[in-house]
Amino acid sequence: MAGQAANADMVLGIGDDCAILRIPPASDLLVTTDLCVEDVHFRRAWHPARSIGHRCLTRGLSDIAAMGGEPVACFLSLGLPPDLSRKWLTGFLQGLIKLAREFKVPLAGGDTSAAPKITADIVVVGKVPSGQALLRSGARPGDGIFVTGALGGSAATLQRLYNGEKLRASAGDRHFYPVPRLEIGRRLREKKLANAAIDLSDGLSVDLRHICEESGVTSLVEAGALPIAAHAGLHHALHGGEDYELLFTAPKGTPMPSSIAGVPVTRIGEILRRSARKPSTTGIVQLRDAAGQEQPLQPAGWEHFRKI
Amino acid sequence: MAGQAANADMVLGIGDDCAILRIPPASDLLVTTDLCVEDVHFRRAWHPARSIGHRCLTRGLSDIAAMGGEPVACFLSLGLPPDLSRKWLTGFLQGLIKLAREFKVPLAGGDTSAAPKITADIVVVGKVPSGQALLRSGARPGDGIFVTGALGGSAATLQRLYNGEKLRASAGDRHFYPVPRLEIGRRLREKKLANAAIDLSDGLSVDLRHICEESGVTSLVEAGALPIAAHAGLHHALHGGEDYELLFTAPKGTPMPSSIAGVPVTRIGEILRRSARKPSTTGIVQLRDAAGQEQPLQPAGWEHFRKI
Repeated sequence: MAGQAANADMVLGIGDDCAILRIPPASDLLVTTDLCVEDVHFRRAWHPARSIGHRCLTRGLSDIAAMGGEPVACFLSLGLPPDLSRKWLTGFLQGLIKLAREFKVPLAGGDTSAAPKITADIVVVGKVPSGQALLRSGARPGDGIFVTGALGGSAATLQRLYNGEKLRASAGDRHFYPVPRLEIGRRLREKKLANAAIDLSDGLSVDLRHICEESGVTSLVEAGALPIAAHAGLHHALHGGEDYELLFTAPKGTPMPSSIAGVPVTRIGEILRRSARKPSTTGIVQLRDAAGQEQPLQPAGWEHFRKI
Repeated sequence: MAGQAANADMVLGIGDDCAILRIPPASDLLVTTDLCVEDVHFRRAWHPARSIGHRCLTRGLSDIAAMGGEPVACFLSLGLPPDLSRKWLTGFLQGLIKLAREFKVPLAGGDTSAAPKITADIVVVGKVPSGQALLRSGARPGDGIFVTGALGGSAATLQRLYNGEKLRASAGDRHFYPVPRLEIGRRLREKKLANAAIDLSDGLSVDLRHICEESGVTSLVEAGALPIAAHAGLHHALHGGEDYELLFTAPKGTPMPSSIAGVPVTRIGEILRRSARKPSTTGIVQLRDAAGQEQPLQPAGWEHFRKI
C-alpha cells in the first residue's frame, strides 16, 4: 500500500500477526467497527468503486468524530467474490486510501477472504484525552439540540437512485463522498461546546432517540428549524441516514458559534425531562410543526429508505 | 450480552459510537482482524455453531499470543443471512463468549448486517509492554526453531470431515475448539525465550516462511523432529493450518524448558543465513528427512486442504 498515510502513533503496520500502535499517555483509546455489504449498503450499479471505499471509511471516521476523537489507524477486512475485477478493487482501495491520507489515518492491517458478495468491515482506532470523549449519555434537560451542516441530502440522492435516475457521483455529493466531521468533533470537545454527541448515520429520528435513551431524557424538535439539504424534503431530513453530520446537545447559555470549521451549526430543538413527557416508546422524541402541533417522531430511520 | 467478561481496561463497551479502552502507560497497543466466511472457513453442516464462534475468537486471540501480548477487548462484525435461526446465532455467541470469559476479554462492540452467507469479522485489541512485542522479523542465523504442542491435528480432522465422516465436535479436539496459546506467548516474552514468533494458523510451511522473509534468513526443518498430532501425518504437520500453536525462534544456548504452561515445546530445526542457501523463492525453508536428504519445503499451507 505504497504512498499511504503514515502516523506517528503507528509503530508497525501490515505484515505481522498484529499491528502495533502507541497511544500517547493520558489518552483513551476509541474503537469502532462498521460492516458494509453489497446490495445492503451499496450497489455496484449505483456506486462507483471509489465511492464505496470512501463511504466505508467515512462510516468509521464519523464514529470517531462523534466522540470528539482523532483517528489513529484503520483496518480493513474484505470479503471478495472470486469474479470481482481487479479494476473494481483498485478503485475501492483508491477511494479508501485517498480519504485515509486526507485525515492522516494509515491502513494498518486487515484480512481478506472469498465471499459471495463484497463485504467490507472497517475498523477505526482513535484517541481522545482521557475522560473527555463525547458520549451519547451526557444530554441534560434544558440543553439545546444542534446539528452540523444540512440534513437529508444523502437520502434524497438515494431516493433518486431508487427511482432509476442515472446520477454522476460528483465529489461534492455527500451521498457518494461524505466527509466525516472530525474537525468539528474535536473542537466541540476542546471548547466544551457539547454535553452529548452522536453522528447522523441512521437518521435524526433514530439517532436523537439514542441520545435520549442513553441520557434518560426526552426531546422536542422544531420542524421549522431543521436545516434541510438542497433537493431534500422534511421526510429525508427527519429519517434519512448517511448524512454523517454531527448531532449534539449543549447547555443553555453555551456560546455556540453559528458555524464550526466552516460548517453551519443549527439549533433544532431542546432536551426535556423524561418526567415532563410520557416515558413511552413513541414519545421520547417529539416533533413540533409550524402550526405548533406536537406529535411523536417515530424512529423510521435509514432502514426506511433502504430496501435494496 | 449479560454476564460477559469485564476488564479493567474497558471504560465503555457496547452502546455508543465507539468503545473506550484505557491502555496502561508504557504499553503498546496490538490490533488484529480476522474474517471468517461460511463455506470458506467453516461449514454449518460440519461445525456446531458454538465451535464456529469459538474458532472465530481463537483466530484473533492467537494473533495476540504470537506477539506475546495480552488481550484487552474484542469486537465482532456479523453478517447474517435473513433465514438464519435464532438458535444458531445463540450457539455462535455462546461459543464466542465462553472463550472470551475464559481469557477475560470483553466483547466491547461490533456491527451487524444482512449478508448472503454468515460472515464474522473478529477484531481483538491487546496490549504489550512498550517495545517488547514478539515480531516475525527477529529471527537470527543460529537460532533454534521451536513449536508448542503437536502439529497437524486440525488438518487431520478437517480431512476426515472432507471424507464424509460424521464427527462429534468434542471439547478436546483442537479443530473444533482450539485454545489460543496466550499464556505461552506471555511467558516467551517475559522470560526472553524468543527472538521471533508467529502463530500456526496457515500451516508450518507457510508460517515459517513468513518468519524467514520478515527476518531475512532461511531455515532448515528436521522432519523427524516434528511433534505430529495423534491421527495426523507428516503432510498434515507440514501444511495443515488452524493448529494455533506458536512457532518461534530462540538463540542457541537459550535455556528452553521442555514445556511451558503444561504444553510441550519442541525444537524442530534451525535458522540459517540467507547467503548460505539460494535466496530463491523455493529454498527459503528446507526440509531434511530421516535419510538426511534436503529439499525445499514448498509453501502449501492451509489453502491446500481447504477446498470447501
